[in-house]
Amino acid sequence: MSTDTLRIACIQLAKQPTKEETYAHIRTLFGSIPNGTDLVMLPEMWNGPYDASLFPTFAEPENGPSRQFLSSLAKEKRVFLCGGSIAESENGCVYNTSYVFDPNGMQIAKHRKAHLFDIDIDGGQHFHESDTLSPGTRATVFSTPFCRMGLCICYDIRFPELARLMADDGAEVILVPAAFNMTTGPAHWELLFRSRALDNQVYTVGTAPARDRSASYRSWGHSIVCSPWGDVLVQAGERESIVFAALDLARLRRVREELPVLKQRRTDLYRLERTPEK
Amino acid sequence: MSTDTLRIACIQLAKQPTKEETYAHIRTLFGSIPNGTDLVMLPEMWNGPYDASLFPTFAEPENGPSRQFLSSLAKEKRVFLCGGSIAESENGCVYNTSYVFDPNGMQIAKHRKAHLFDIDIDGGQHFHESDTLSPGTRATVFSTPFCRMGLCICYDIRFPELARLMADDGAEVILVPAAFNMTTGPAHWELLFRSRALDNQVYTVGTAPARDRSASYRSWGHSIVCSPWGDVLVQAGERESIVFAALDLARLRRVREELPVLKQRRTDLYRLERTPEK
Repeated sequence: MSTDTLRIACIQLAKQPTKEETYAHIRTLFGSIPNGTDLVMLPEMWNGPYDASLFPTFAEPENGPSRQFLSSLAKEKRVFLCGGSIAESENGCVYNTSYVFDPNGMQIAKHRKAHLFDIDIDGGQHFHESDTLSPGTRATVFSTPFCRMGLCICYDIRFPELARLMADDGAEVILVPAAFNMTTGPAHWELLFRSRALDNQVYTVGTAPARDRSASYRSWGHSIVCSPWGDVLVQAGERESIVFAALDLARLRRVREELPVLKQRRTDLYRLERTPEK
Repeated sequence: MSTDTLRIACIQLAKQPTKEETYAHIRTLFGSIPNGTDLVMLPEMWNGPYDASLFPTFAEPENGPSRQFLSSLAKEKRVFLCGGSIAESENGCVYNTSYVFDPNGMQIAKHRKAHLFDIDIDGGQHFHESDTLSPGTRATVFSTPFCRMGLCICYDIRFPELARLMADDGAEVILVPAAFNMTTGPAHWELLFRSRALDNQVYTVGTAPARDRSASYRSWGHSIVCSPWGDVLVQAGERESIVFAALDLARLRRVREELPVLKQRRTDLYRLERTPEK
């Protein structure tokens, strides 16, 4: 196995009416994923509606059925699996949580969305995630045989500091289960994935749910992969589909040599620090 | 005078063979700038060739003729004038320096390029500014009756930390005299100006020289103005031209209320600090 190329598949999923039907549907979609795929990714809140008032209803504890499904699927299919995100309950709090499993079904990363999506655009989107969710308290980076990878969720990608922390911690790929909407999607989705990729010279991967015209929150879709040079390698439309890309990690290292912006930062003028945990 | 709207004009200048001819040419171009324009801007290194080996030859001390020209012009035309940048000499060092003058011809800001442009792209651009230039040592923000403004030069815009420091210091407009090239221009120019604008919810303004096909370093041109929502308000082509835009500062404040990302940063997780000067 070459570890200089990471073959990924992002499932832009059409959610089904129940969790069980969604599990079955994901299994069916795996039939379209070629052998040799290294990492498969699901979207944000793939096992229920994207509706802040329903997150507590759909939430599962750490060892709940959705996490068990993901772990089993990773092991059965022998892939790294970034399990999008689900509502996770712990001690009376609900989090928007992403789990990553290795091909043995072992959990190798867990990220709780750190920046909650609270916006109120005149004539546009209104959403207050913090009404029902609690935020995570750390940046998440983990190791794989390919490279180190960062993991964050949707609104987290708006904050350049978080991506920078992940890159500084060695991330060469940043995975972002997400669900932008019909206001912020056309305006900002591609721009954010391209710019985080360019600034940090990483691959960024965004996986969104397919658009459901009957949902209260309509997803922009457009699952996307961007290169360390800031270009779009592939981008989906709005419908259910699977986006494939081969991430060339040797190219990433070349870009970092030719345009060494990460080394050229003026740390004598400014410094981004991880705030010590209390 | 309303201070909620800032009317700007960016001169995408075709440099002339000598400094004196360039001064005269700029005076001629001012004839196309309408009354009521608040701020006029010139490109990076407008008074000589963009050639690292020639910067020492064209460099002027603080009170040199190009700075005097800019100050007189601002006073005569009664405008704020961001004088692009010129090579400045001091104590045997040469800097890439931008001066800003108020409508009385008084200098209100001075920025020395803090990130020097040293790249070496296989089959593309090779340039080593640090062979002849010394870097500046601070971020630059200044006050006007319209708003506070940040000022940086070309390669500086690649570093999200610098734009963030300027926004944190109150900048609502970031002025960037610049000269991207035929490799980095098509790949990154628009992306960088849009993303710095979106992330910091500021207007970004880039003013570049017109393309000169006979020069060793060919400018991408494409002088640009981007809004706090991350969209391009106006963008030039490659030829000499003047780009006009009216920056609506009330819109900026609305964007910051509707999508309050600057307030939603998790300063309990990370913090960007200005490194104390030694």
